[in-house]
Amino acid sequence: MKKNYADDSYTLHTDLYQINMAKTYWDDKIHEKMAVFEVFFRKMPFNNGYAVFAGLERIISYLKGFAFTNSDIEYLRDLEWYEEDFLTYLKELRFTGTVHAMKEGELAFANEPLIRIEAPLIQGQLVETAILNIFNYQTLIATKASRIKRVIPDEQALEFGTRRAQEMDAAIWGTRAAYIGGFESTSNVRAGKMFGIPVSGTHAHAMIQAYKDEYVAFHKYAQSHKDCIFLVDTYDTLKSGVPNAIRVAKELGEKMNFVGIRLDSGDLAYLSKQARKMLDEAGFTKTKIVASNDLDEDTIMNLKAQGARIDSWGIGTKLITAYDQPALGAVYKLVAIEKEDGQFVDSIKISGNPEKVTTPGLKKVYRIVNKENGKAEGDYITMEDEKPQEEERLNMFHPTYTHIGKIVTNFEAVDLHQTIFKDGELVYTLPSLPEIQGFVKENLGLLWEEYKRTANPQEYPVDLSQKCWDNKMEQIKEVQDKIRQKLQPINK
Amino acid sequence: MKKNYADDSYTLHTDLYQINMAKTYWDDKIHEKMAVFEVFFRKMPFNNGYAVFAGLERIISYLKGFAFTNSDIEYLRDLEWYEEDFLTYLKELRFTGTVHAMKEGELAFANEPLIRIEAPLIQGQLVETAILNIFNYQTLIATKASRIKRVIPDEQALEFGTRRAQEMDAAIWGTRAAYIGGFESTSNVRAGKMFGIPVSGTHAHAMIQAYKDEYVAFHKYAQSHKDCIFLVDTYDTLKSGVPNAIRVAKELGEKMNFVGIRLDSGDLAYLSKQARKMLDEAGFTKTKIVASNDLDEDTIMNLKAQGARIDSWGIGTKLITAYDQPALGAVYKLVAIEKEDGQFVDSIKISGNPEKVTTPGLKKVYRIVNKENGKAEGDYITMEDEKPQEEERLNMFHPTYTHIGKIVTNFEAVDLHQTIFKDGELVYTLPSLPEIQGFVKENLGLLWEEYKRTANPQEYPVDLSQKCWDNKMEQIKEVQDKIRQKLQPINK
Repeated sequence: MKKNYADDSYTLHTDLYQINMAKTYWDDKIHEKMAVFEVFFRKMPFNNGYAVFAGLERIISYLKGFAFTNSDIEYLRDLEWYEEDFLTYLKELRFTGTVHAMKEGELAFANEPLIRIEAPLIQGQLVETAILNIFNYQTLIATKASRIKRVIPDEQALEFGTRRAQEMDAAIWGTRAAYIGGFESTSNVRAGKMFGIPVSGTHAHAMIQAYKDEYVAFHKYAQSHKDCIFLVDTYDTLKSGVPNAIRVAKELGEKMNFVGIRLDSGDLAYLSKQARKMLDEAGFTKTKIVASNDLDEDTIMNLKAQGARIDSWGIGTKLITAYDQPALGAVYKLVAIEKEDGQFVDSIKISGNPEKVTTPGLKKVYRIVNKENGKAEGDYITMEDEKPQEEERLNMFHPTYTHIGKIVTNFEAVDLHQTIFKDGELVYTLPSLPEIQGFVKENLGLLWEEYKRTANPQEYPVDLSQKCWDNKMEQIKEVQDKIRQKLQPINK
Repeated sequence: MKKNYADDSYTLHTDLYQINMAKTYWDDKIHEKMAVFEVFFRKMPFNNGYAVFAGLERIISYLKGFAFTNSDIEYLRDLEWYEEDFLTYLKELRFTGTVHAMKEGELAFANEPLIRIEAPLIQGQLVETAILNIFNYQTLIATKASRIKRVIPDEQALEFGTRRAQEMDAAIWGTRAAYIGGFESTSNVRAGKMFGIPVSGTHAHAMIQAYKDEYVAFHKYAQSHKDCIFLVDTYDTLKSGVPNAIRVAKELGEKMNFVGIRLDSGDLAYLSKQARKMLDEAGFTKTKIVASNDLDEDTIMNLKAQGARIDSWGIGTKLITAYDQPALGAVYKLVAIEKEDGQFVDSIKISGNPEKVTTPGLKKVYRIVNKENGKAEGDYITMEDEKPQEEERLNMFHPTYTHIGKIVTNFEAVDLHQTIFKDGELVYTLPSLPEIQGFVKENLGLLWEEYKRTANPQEYPVDLSQKCWDNKMEQIKEVQDKIRQKLQPINK
């Protein structure tokens, strides 16, 4: 049975190998060498044209609270793998690194540095797992929500997913991510309390069943709540639900606001058209139709193509679990490490899968915005010391198919990295949630429509500067030469 | 930004409509009528032949802790939808109901009552969302883990999913569910601490990169840890990784245990066979090969069919997110409610989708075990007052295709419902986690192989007793007659 610790912390929310590597670094006394890690993902989620960066708030709270508690150390001691002085060192450890990251709500693309952590090697290693756990899920859901919202830009998108979420945190942080991606409200009351997200919901089938009579149930609900959205499919939508809803609304007149009806099963296209007709004929032309039942951007587009008369969309399972791709595969890779002389030396990982080769070195990422039309030309990854904002012209070329490229002039190079922590101190002020939601909308304005369509979008350019590209090729060659010559060691 | 409340509780972790229905019941003074709700799912996850029931531990902890805190009430008050005396009532509310449920590790099937909650209507309604949120995820992952474990019954299954889990709770409770389903260990240290699950993991690519030299890195790790599993794919598995691992093991001899190597990219079938050969030729015939990289039961079976020489399997994304079906659609339905005379009256929901029709009434579920061969004949759902264990023969027939059936004799009828809470008091003692894992194995012994194969298993019979079936048909007819005759109301 679960042990409950008064001093439970998220600091042990890491993979065991992080602690085992930490021990090796500590034994070898290289644990405080500065190291630079980057978070990035390799493939666009849902084959979408963009992703919506989310998760920073919880990552900040995690890093601020990073500290092994007494019971954490006790547990590690009981494993009998770690010496006492190593445990004492861990006990005192706090996060003292510098973090650069995109803002929440920033549009993010594959293979660009989204978060950069510069910290003593041991710290950089220990915080990897939790950062990925948080980032991967929240960015996935914000992106999914944005996709869904794009097919219903002028209609209400309601988050209804708690019961199908992957445990409680996913329900809470998933609905926050959904709000960032453009959703208007959530059904989860705790999320409403925590984040100030508007909450929505009226009644379920159980209420109709509790009264055993749909008319009576609607009537009782209306006596108890001014604004009514009646769920009409408990027994039979068109023969029972809609007529009973209309009957109650007519009887109560001004005493209630007949805000809407909700359809939760059956043929939503057919039922919504019939229900609309019935409502209109009864004079309730302003009463809205809400639909729910395994909806996502594809089923919604399909329903709209069939002429469904739906005004608000309750989205549960398919959003909160990112059903069609339930994981974002972001990784956390060492890109540079301190040498004896205090300088950084770049680091690369090669791998048998070509797409898993990392881009070495301390890097920055800029969004290149055309000043003439206000649209983004692409993102441009540079080495730390480059200053594209001071260039007159940029040669932007594809990092794999290098013959594809363009010369860009009259541009603004927007630095996408914010400084979040400086030497362990939080120096960033989080915007409000509505500000973040607004920031997404603003960012989407920078993209041509071709990048934003939900099916087969154009690939948005994410290019390496010449210097960055040359450095990567050099590092690959260095490793390959070393393997061929079986020379050991290099770069020492 | 997230508001942090010292008195945060899970009681608001519910859908707003539960609170709005609660208000209607309260206004109408029916909120303390006893109601009976059942949790069940309609489709087998992953088209598996069985599901593994999990989540009870956290559901118990949730129900025990059910109480609106001051800040919860404050939040509801601020919404300005609820009167003060209703809020006062909520503030005093505790869970006083009776809960019957399957044990964790029990095999569960579609359309049978898995959890039965008898409570005052208002309570039964308010606890729905959290119960489904917990049950759906944990049962999904325990089932997925059991599927994976079935293709590697004699090999190690290691849970590696935290970084891809859907937020932190999923990582923690998902790994517990994976352990229940048969996994041997987890990489998540916090889960190890909380649940006593064995933890595993050695080092990542980052350590090789930190030393910039694979040989040096392996050597350093081996000086710091007696047991070594070297990750060999940072630069080139066969040309660099395996030779370096062997070199270090040979050099250090008795000073280290060369437990294994780990492959994390490339062609795992080819690489494992080549690596096995290299290890054997070097005399390390007992050194194991661990593989990871987007594995699930299908890729594992495929690798085994190709003759891959893999001894341990690290499973991440595909397990912890249940990638191929990331949600279990369990629902929570009212099946009976108290009448004025204190007796229960059954309740049904019809719906436009035929499979969404519920089975009304207080029910029990029995596993019918053939005494001759010790195998399960199927599950048998009865009305509360039936006693199949006292019958000589049972007529078990398919609830939809009623001509399919069999007469069963010489059987034991095992009641699958445990009493968990009695009038709000916890009366159940949770078994230990290893006991639950053992219970799954024991239960699987009851099933014929045909129900357990991972592709196209036979459908395990879940039948209704004649009385239960007759009652359902009667209720359907009653509702249909009412709709046809537009008679209002019935059953009063």
